[in-house]
Amino acid sequence: MQVVCEVFHKINFPALRQRKERKKYIIMIEWKNFDELASVKKLSALAGKVKLKEVMAGESGADRVKKYAVPMAEGLCYSYAPKEVDDDVLAALVELAKEAQLSDKFKALYNGEVINTGEKRMVLHHLTRGQLGEDVMADGVNKRSFYIEQQKRIADFANDVHAGKITNEKGEKFTTAVQIGIGGSDLGPRAMYLALENWAKKNNTFLMDAKFISNVDPDDASQVLAGTDVAHAIFILVSKSGTTLETLTNQSFVMDALKKAGLDPAKHMIAVTSETSPLAHSDDYLDAFYMDDYIGGRYSSTSTVGGAVLSLAFGPDVFARFLDGAAAEDKLATETDPLKNPDMLDALIGVYERNFLGYPATAVLPYSQAMSRFPAHLQQLDMESNGKSVNRFGEPVNYKTGPIIFGEPGTNGQHSFYQLLHQGTDIIPLQFIGFKKSQLENDVTIQGSTSQKKLDANVSAQIQAFATGKDDENRNKYFAGGRPSSIIIGDQLTPETLGALLAHYENKVMFQGFCWNVNSFDQEGVQLGKTLAKKVLAHETDGALKAYADIFGI
Amino acid sequence: MQVVCEVFHKINFPALRQRKERKKYIIMIEWKNFDELASVKKLSALAGKVKLKEVMAGESGADRVKKYAVPMAEGLCYSYAPKEVDDDVLAALVELAKEAQLSDKFKALYNGEVINTGEKRMVLHHLTRGQLGEDVMADGVNKRSFYIEQQKRIADFANDVHAGKITNEKGEKFTTAVQIGIGGSDLGPRAMYLALENWAKKNNTFLMDAKFISNVDPDDASQVLAGTDVAHAIFILVSKSGTTLETLTNQSFVMDALKKAGLDPAKHMIAVTSETSPLAHSDDYLDAFYMDDYIGGRYSSTSTVGGAVLSLAFGPDVFARFLDGAAAEDKLATETDPLKNPDMLDALIGVYERNFLGYPATAVLPYSQAMSRFPAHLQQLDMESNGKSVNRFGEPVNYKTGPIIFGEPGTNGQHSFYQLLHQGTDIIPLQFIGFKKSQLENDVTIQGSTSQKKLDANVSAQIQAFATGKDDENRNKYFAGGRPSSIIIGDQLTPETLGALLAHYENKVMFQGFCWNVNSFDQEGVQLGKTLAKKVLAHETDGALKAYADIFGI
Repeated sequence: MQVVCEVFHKINFPALRQRKERKKYIIMIEWKNFDELASVKKLSALAGKVKLKEVMAGESGADRVKKYAVPMAEGLCYSYAPKEVDDDVLAALVELAKEAQLSDKFKALYNGEVINTGEKRMVLHHLTRGQLGEDVMADGVNKRSFYIEQQKRIADFANDVHAGKITNEKGEKFTTAVQIGIGGSDLGPRAMYLALENWAKKNNTFLMDAKFISNVDPDDASQVLAGTDVAHAIFILVSKSGTTLETLTNQSFVMDALKKAGLDPAKHMIAVTSETSPLAHSDDYLDAFYMDDYIGGRYSSTSTVGGAVLSLAFGPDVFARFLDGAAAEDKLATETDPLKNPDMLDALIGVYERNFLGYPATAVLPYSQAMSRFPAHLQQLDMESNGKSVNRFGEPVNYKTGPIIFGEPGTNGQHSFYQLLHQGTDIIPLQFIGFKKSQLENDVTIQGSTSQKKLDANVSAQIQAFATGKDDENRNKYFAGGRPSSIIIGDQLTPETLGALLAHYENKVMFQGFCWNVNSFDQEGVQLGKTLAKKVLAHETDGALKAYADIFGI
Repeated sequence: MQVVCEVFHKINFPALRQRKERKKYIIMIEWKNFDELASVKKLSALAGKVKLKEVMAGESGADRVKKYAVPMAEGLCYSYAPKEVDDDVLAALVELAKEAQLSDKFKALYNGEVINTGEKRMVLHHLTRGQLGEDVMADGVNKRSFYIEQQKRIADFANDVHAGKITNEKGEKFTTAVQIGIGGSDLGPRAMYLALENWAKKNNTFLMDAKFISNVDPDDASQVLAGTDVAHAIFILVSKSGTTLETLTNQSFVMDALKKAGLDPAKHMIAVTSETSPLAHSDDYLDAFYMDDYIGGRYSSTSTVGGAVLSLAFGPDVFARFLDGAAAEDKLATETDPLKNPDMLDALIGVYERNFLGYPATAVLPYSQAMSRFPAHLQQLDMESNGKSVNRFGEPVNYKTGPIIFGEPGTNGQHSFYQLLHQGTDIIPLQFIGFKKSQLENDVTIQGSTSQKKLDANVSAQIQAFATGKDDENRNKYFAGGRPSSIIIGDQLTPETLGALLAHYENKVMFQGFCWNVNSFDQEGVQLGKTLAKKVLAHETDGALKAYADIFGI
């Protein structure tokens, strides 16, 4: 196995070739476009073959529920019986996975290949929670050791805050953590905080409130600050580059508020950033914790970006358990048989729905109020990763890539947009998530059942309703069925299961990016707006842009 | 003008015929399917004609910004320059509006015709905020008088609560209002509350906190109650039918909590319901306020459903100003020339995008953190109203109806899913909303500009970036442009402008429903799931549904 890694690229990566010598595995990877794959033709021919209304009815449906399920980490289970697949479709998807070398590409990724071709960067978020392959060296250090070190530094810091060793100027304990960040520095950590808040309260690990400031809209910072006891608040400034407009602006907002309250901002702020950023090693902060260019913002919940706020709020042990859940799911994702790999299988079925069945969107529907912002996080994760029209070599592609992602928790969504999902003119695949137990385990029995049972009965019922529909002579009450879904079922939403869920979707998006041959780890599409906004503020515009700037009085 | 109303229906409505005698206007309405309209062919031929990349560049773009704008109520302006329209397309859309009799149908609606054919009901939400046409009698009363009476009853009640005349058992003032409702009884009122919270604080009309319990997930009620001083809380139970499973379950949750705290639930709860519901005229509540079957849940924010919580939180005067804004926009919506009617024009352009340009979704992107849940409300409003596959007579249609609606506030969305909007393989039309001033008017100047200016510069820049894109030899940094948007611009988000915005979207959805000949006012698609959930709880299932129920241990 002492052979170099052979990666056939259409463009050159000198850095990559230099690292060849220390590789200990063989991967022969061809980065083919999706429409170059032979299995694509086969899948095309199968599209529409499976009629959910038939196969999900009666005993056939019960058999499918038994058969089409694959265990995930932490006791979760990915059930795909209500998807438009059968053994033939699955066999063709397995072929696609092999042909697209999904496992090999993942292996290359976690062993430190430069998978983010656009920005010429490695993609190492898996290393923030475990070691899947060989040691990855970069910037002169072992990256896994670096991430562990940062996690430990945060744990020590958080423990000191909780113990009252790190305090405000008056020696009083901090009671609130306020994260200042946007996009990946906001959506993921915020969703994870909300997902574990109840659980932590129930399990006596709720140590500090957390709040979040993200938008450049001045009302966002004003409102959060108005509801915060700033004298006892510790602010976490999160920006990898240290140059994010919104975040620096909101930092100034916060510093103003602290000064107005007669407080020293440097005693109330910590930074989470890269070591090369202007925020690193600065006297403006109590301390700084580091991430690096190999962690994309939307993949950063398990890095210091999520670690600081979650360790302060719930304690380092809870954050470590969250990482354990993610690591366990990552390990499953290394399985080469897609039928035993829930992350890969979910990705493949999604590709089938997008490219062969022609569905433009996917709805994410957690039956858990605590996961209220999880869909918003997945919206960024998925749409920013795979919403691309060029392949990883910058060449236009001729097939659909990432779908629209949206969702709200059930049962709320049932009383909102489910009408269109059931009876609209487009079919939208659904991803349900459900748990057997609530987090607070505080419940009432009405009409013979608890609220939790009602919640679970509803998600079960929805799956069946979407799949098999209902005949009715009154066409207004007729349900066509044939609307595919999957469900991830777990015992309870805990730090571990949340970590596994997060990793599942991160890995799903990665595998889909591999199928479509796009670079899931850059985001060039966000640049133009930033550039033009600067021009507006500098009054360097003409035409329509100047006309709108004039209307706004800029 | 003493002639009967002639409505050509394919089905009979005896109730409607009985009311003919008192009609004072002539409307000759034919409820044609969309694909029966002659203008549809004309529009088909025009599709793709306008190239945004060209027409929005340079001076042409500036001219369009001047030309393609129409005033809304309360100083708002609907700007559609960045849409794929020109004078020819607009002329054809005007023809479509006439042919589809949009103004006549609206007139019939507000004059009390049975427009909700599925449920054989009138559609009267406009009457909750003004009188657009003749008096509408139903249930033996003048409905406008009825809605005013209920609004006045709530105003008196809220004033008494604020003045300490209505108190808890100890004679102490209530400090928090907690709404218990789901779907239309939750999303709209919650979005409106959040939208006005800052404004009310700034203008010294913030009188009580409001909270919301919606989900049947027991963690929702548990968490809200844990953060609420129940001894000083007044709970608003909102259910038109008085039978909504989630709401009744959560009522029991709350009653338990009150009893455990040694309090009498009947002294802490009010009901908002229909007069025929089991919740009406009950000793279980301090008082009850009424709506009726002519107000759909998703159209109920201006009825008692929104009125109770908003009047308690911000005072009846603020709620009245919100209604004034909605009424003013409604009045504009009666304008028969679509080019002077922003609600109708927005609807027509949306239909053009959906049916002729083939776009599957629309994103709603308010550049205002206060509007964070407005997109979730519009998601219900639009998708539940027009996500239908049958026309108003229950016959299947052969064209696309309501699109997917999703959105988050800017600039947050820019750092999330905008990547796909700019460079993804599908084009998604965008609806921006922006204001010249923030609500709290508390701002900082960084790098020469305030946060509000940065916010407005960003939304302006996005419009241009989406429309004209950017050429680049590196295809990864290339923006194709040609991505249509519109923007509603206002001075500030106030009760009046919020009311106008709400009415704008309600009327837009209504006009689109008229174009597609669907009934935008029923929601049969939500029934099947409810029925099956009951079967699960009663253990009356088999097949896949039983298999899932077993997994959940139901």
